[in-house]
This record gives sequence, structure tokens and C-alpha cells, in this order.
Amino acid sequence: MERFNKILNIDELNLQATVEPGVITEVFQNAVKEKGLFYPPDPSSKGSCFLGGNLANNSGGPKAVKYGVTRDYVLNMEVVLPTGEIIWTGANVMKNSTGYNLTQLMCGSEGTLGVITKIVFKLRGYPQKNVLLLIPFTTNEEACKAIAAIFIEGITPSGVEFFEREAGIKTIAYCDQVLGSPVTTQLPENMGAYLLCELDGNDEDVLMKDAERVMAVVERFEIGEVLFADSTLQKEELWKVRKNISPAVNWKTVTKSDDVVVPRSQLPQLIVGIKEIGKQYDFNTVCFGHLGDGNLHINFLRDGMSDHDWETKVPEGIGEVFKLVVSLGGTLSGEHGVGITKRPYMSIAMNEVNLNLMRGIKKVFDPNGILNPGKIF
Amino acid sequence: MERFNKILNIDELNLQATVEPGVITEVFQNAVKEKGLFYPPDPSSKGSCFLGGNLANNSGGPKAVKYGVTRDYVLNMEVVLPTGEIIWTGANVMKNSTGYNLTQLMCGSEGTLGVITKIVFKLRGYPQKNVLLLIPFTTNEEACKAIAAIFIEGITPSGVEFFEREAGIKTIAYCDQVLGSPVTTQLPENMGAYLLCELDGNDEDVLMKDAERVMAVVERFEIGEVLFADSTLQKEELWKVRKNISPAVNWKTVTKSDDVVVPRSQLPQLIVGIKEIGKQYDFNTVCFGHLGDGNLHINFLRDGMSDHDWETKVPEGIGEVFKLVVSLGGTLSGEHGVGITKRPYMSIAMNEVNLNLMRGIKKVFDPNGILNPGKIF
Repeated sequence: MERFNKILNIDELNLQATVEPGVITEVFQNAVKEKGLFYPPDPSSKGSCFLGGNLANNSGGPKAVKYGVTRDYVLNMEVVLPTGEIIWTGANVMKNSTGYNLTQLMCGSEGTLGVITKIVFKLRGYPQKNVLLLIPFTTNEEACKAIAAIFIEGITPSGVEFFEREAGIKTIAYCDQVLGSPVTTQLPENMGAYLLCELDGNDEDVLMKDAERVMAVVERFEIGEVLFADSTLQKEELWKVRKNISPAVNWKTVTKSDDVVVPRSQLPQLIVGIKEIGKQYDFNTVCFGHLGDGNLHINFLRDGMSDHDWETKVPEGIGEVFKLVVSLGGTLSGEHGVGITKRPYMSIAMNEVNLNLMRGIKKVFDPNGILNPGKIF
Repeated sequence: MERFNKILNIDELNLQATVEPGVITEVFQNAVKEKGLFYPPDPSSKGSCFLGGNLANNSGGPKAVKYGVTRDYVLNMEVVLPTGEIIWTGANVMKNSTGYNLTQLMCGSEGTLGVITKIVFKLRGYPQKNVLLLIPFTTNEEACKAIAAIFIEGITPSGVEFFEREAGIKTIAYCDQVLGSPVTTQLPENMGAYLLCELDGNDEDVLMKDAERVMAVVERFEIGEVLFADSTLQKEELWKVRKNISPAVNWKTVTKSDDVVVPRSQLPQLIVGIKEIGKQYDFNTVCFGHLGDGNLHINFLRDGMSDHDWETKVPEGIGEVFKLVVSLGGTLSGEHGVGITKRPYMSIAMNEVNLNLMRGIKKVFDPNGILNPGKIF
């Protein structure tokens, strides 16, 4: 069976690679890393997701805050249109102002405009060193306040990940009981939320200076004892906790999940507002995500809720969360896309004129509506 | 008269700014710099061009090689459609996977899809320090070979500018005789071409180390004595030379200009090929540009040519240059756009299917074809 999973070329001279869409993200990352190169988009599902899917949804991950998302790494792609015609969307170049940007239009179009058959990515040099801090905060709100403050100082961490206490506890239990791989690094207790802050680069002295600057910022907030992860094991364990939150939260309950995004300074209002809406609509949430770029993952927990509440009341509450997000200058999805589940809420994020433009574009590419019908709008 | 030239907001908390499209690029750069912030797109015409125009053409400039082009800094825009309807294309967020990316579609669309009335840009912290090297090479080809070699070492300069000897001579005369502002810094003589290599950041030690690494790379090629610009005056003068090449080349002759872009490793073949085509079609060229991202500006000189040759033979030769560019994996425009002058050549860069998709998109936005008619395709 043709799996379309070949890495066709890694061009070290031009820091580019050409791949088929069925290559698993982590396989690609490892292949370029062997040549000292770096493909930064790093979704938590990297061990199983495909580069073609990453492109269709414009996937992000923790490193997006410093290095950008999938759309920032795609230079060109070969696409089979629903009409059977084949195009290359751009050229294999770093800058391109030659007509409308079909590459960026395809990226994030969720398989509704064409079938991606080859992708040309740009790559970077692999950063040689990193440091990782686990910063515990008394409350979600304090953690969220600290984030904008870090960036205002001119520091650009390579990851600023947030998780609530409950996400941490669930994930440590999940690693132990499901993965059979206990976490020996302790999360400081009796704290409300944690930030995992990674800095990377090639110069250790600069990284240590930046870490000190991060410390100086977060000490202005209500924090517990900061854990400076100084061994590979500690770093791996902390990332293991972060990367397993999603399966851990879904382990013993059904959830609905969203990945809203707001300007950083609005994160405290967002996190407080979500919990208030939860009280109003009787649901619990577990929140975590890539807060360095304002991208919060919210899992709404079913936890013994009646079918009626789960199918009616929770979706109403989710609508209220989206309204809050948009009122804060944000939008529905930072990196997961719209698909079917967010489609009913699209009118909260944009007006009918935007949606009609998108429907018009869809019709230009796919006049018979045969590709991934019913998605987005 | 309404000039739409107001900076509406500089949001230091979120590292964003909202502007009207008639703000001059340099005015905006200076306004954010006062707050320690950095808007990197830096076209040579920054003292007179507008941010709205930068967006419509997806402008670049020397810093694009490290920091990206205009499209990498636009988060959201307000657009008046030809139908009179008003939309915001996105949201004021760092990541967005909520429907088709209308923001990126507008950027580089050369005023053919809508009238941009407000723009939300993202900003960065202003890099505190920089170093500048002027590296003379015996030939164009040697200079072009050195460029890919610098990047392979994992160094990312904040500028890698190339100019031919003739561009340098003309510009020094232009600064003296037209601007009345003589350049006291000497360009090393009897060399074929120059690279201006800037490194920036916040740590002087790291910059000096990187400068040494650049030196170690370029010493493998045929170079003259490298000028390490260590005073503000020298840096300013070298940038003055680079930034005045375009008016200087147009000072005593009429030119046609292009801004082709190829993968870095193809630059030596490109520069050699352009001169060969020039011999074949009897025209001279002056070449310079942002070669760190493979973006070469070519000025075709009229220099006493007959109307017939200028109107017929040179355009044919330009077509040959474009065919060469595309055969090297490149495309017609890196940052200037297509407009009218490159429109006849678009079929060299892309097939009719691409062009029909673009025409279809145009029709969705502008069914009556009233906006900037006749541009691009």
C-alpha cells in the first residue's frame, strides 16, 4: 500500500526538506536533527500525527511561541485539486510576492481545498542548549499574569506552558498507572498552577542570564519554590507530564476540548471567566496549554453528567466561553482547526461576510464540494 | 484631508500595534523603538513608503533574512471590500487556525481584493547590539557561493546584503554629487563584489563569536580585506551606500528592475547566468540585493540603447532571466510584487491552473473587477 510516507530530500545547502504528507512529525524531526537541523512545530501528538495533517490544521505546539507554527515553515506544496489538476502552490524560496499566496491559503484549510501530495519545508539550525524551569503559582490567575510580564522584558522563551494543579495530578497518576512510567520529579504541592518555561539557544551563559531574568520577573508574583530542571531526566519527566495531559484528562472521563487563543494580557480574565461560566453551567474544566502565545486548551469534563446536560447545557456554556474569548480580542482555535465541533460557533468569531468569502474560495477550488464536505462552515 | 496616517495604539503588554495604512514605515519603526520595540520589515524606501503598501506587496528589506517579511508581522486587518462591506480578516492573536487565512491572502494581493483601512502588527523587543562586516570578494560568483556556506554553519545574520562593484562605485558618486553627503569609508578596491553582513542581538560576546564564525567561513573563499565597521559613522555610511543603490543606479540612466528570488545555493548559477543572458541580448545589468534570502535585485540599464532594443530585445532577455530563475527553483518576485511589469511573465512562474484559481479568488472578493484592475494577471 502506498503510504505517502517518504522523506524525499533533506537539502542541507538550502536548509529545506521535501516530504510526502504521510511522514510522522517526530520521524521527520529526528531525521533532520541527525543532520543538525531543526523542524520546530512540535504538537503533543508528534509520535503519531502526520505532517500533511499538521499542515491542514496549521499545528503549533510548545515551541511556536519562539519559532512559529506549521505555516511559518511551509514554503511550497504540491496539491491535487478536486478537479484532478495538479499545482505547486509557490516556490522553494524564503520570500515570495508573486501572486496570491496559495501556500498560506492551503495551510489550515483542513483538507477542504485540495489534497496535499508533497510539502517543501524550511528548516533551522538545531539549538544546542536549553534550560527548563518549573514555576509553581498560588493561582491560575497569578500564573497568567506573569506570562505577559516575561515577554515585556524582551525575553523570548522557547516554551511557556501552563497547567492547572488538577491537570498535573491527573497526569502523574496516568503516567504511573497507565503508561507504567512513574514520574519521580515532584511537583511542588499546594499550588494552584504551574508554568513550564524553556529557554534555548547555543550559548549557555546567555541562557543562564535569561533564566535569571525570568526568575526576577516571576518573583513579582505569588509563586512557590521554582524547580530548575538540571538533569536530562528531570527535563524529560517535566515534558512527559506536560505532553500527557491530554490523554490523562480523557483517561477516566469523557471530555469536550477546545483550543482558544487570546492576546497574552487577556489570559487572567480568560481563565477567571472560564471558571465562572463553568459554575453557571455546572461543568468542570481542566485548563492547560501554550500560554506563551495565548493559546489555552480547555477540557470540559463530563464526570457523570446527564445526556441532556452534556448535549445541551455544556455546548451552550462553550458558546459563552467563545463569546468571552472573542470579547477579549481572541478567536476560537489557535492550532486545532474548526472541523465539525467548532463549526456551529463560527459566527461568534466572524461575520457572515467573512464566511461567505470563505465559501466562495471553497467553490473556486472545489466547485462540486467533494473534499471533506461539511467542515469549517 | 484624511491621510489615514495615525498610529492608533502601541500595546506594550501584548507587543502589538494598530495603525492606519498611511503611516510611513520609518515613522512607525521610530515610534515603537521609543518604547524599546522593534518592527523589523525595513524596505530601502522606508522614509517614504506606507505600511499599507508594504502589506499589499508583502515588503521585505535587509532584515527579512533573520526576522521575516511584512506577512510575518501582520496579525489582523480591517478591510473594506469592493462591495462596501467591512471585515476584520483575523484576530489579534499569535496563532490562528479558525477558517481560511484571509489575512495572509490579503497580504501581497496588491490592492486587488480590498482596501486595507486598519492593520494590527506584532512587534518584538529591540535588539540592543549589532556588528557589521563589509566583505569584499574577487567575483560575484565567489560572494554568492559564500552565502549558503554562512547559513550552513547555523549562523543567522540579521542582514546579508550583496552588491556588485559597479553598484558601489555609482552609489558613492551619487552620495557625493546628488545627496551632497560624501562617504568617507573606503570600499576596498579592485574587488568584484561586496557582502554587507550584519549580526544583531543583546549579547556582545555572542555577536563577536558569531562574527568570528562568519570570518572563518568567508576566508574559505577569494576575499579581500574585511572591514569590521566599529563606529556608528562607519555602520551608517555602509548602510547609506547599500540603501542608495537603487536611486544611484537610476541616476544617469533609465532602468528596468526586477527582484527575483531563488534558493540560496543557486545564487552562483543565477548571477553567472544573468550576465550570460546580458551578453546574448546586448544589455548591461547592475545586481544587488538581499542575498541572505536569495532575493536579487537586477537593474537592466538602458545606457543609450535604441527604442526598439529597449522595448523588444530587453523584455525578451528579461523573460530568459525569469526562465532561468524558475529552472533554479525560484520565482519572479521576492518582495516587490507583480503589478503590470511582471504580469506578462506570470506563466513562466506558474501554470494556468494556478492563475485561474487566483482569478477565481479575485472574483469572489471583487465580482465587478473595480479594484486595481489589470494588476497581477
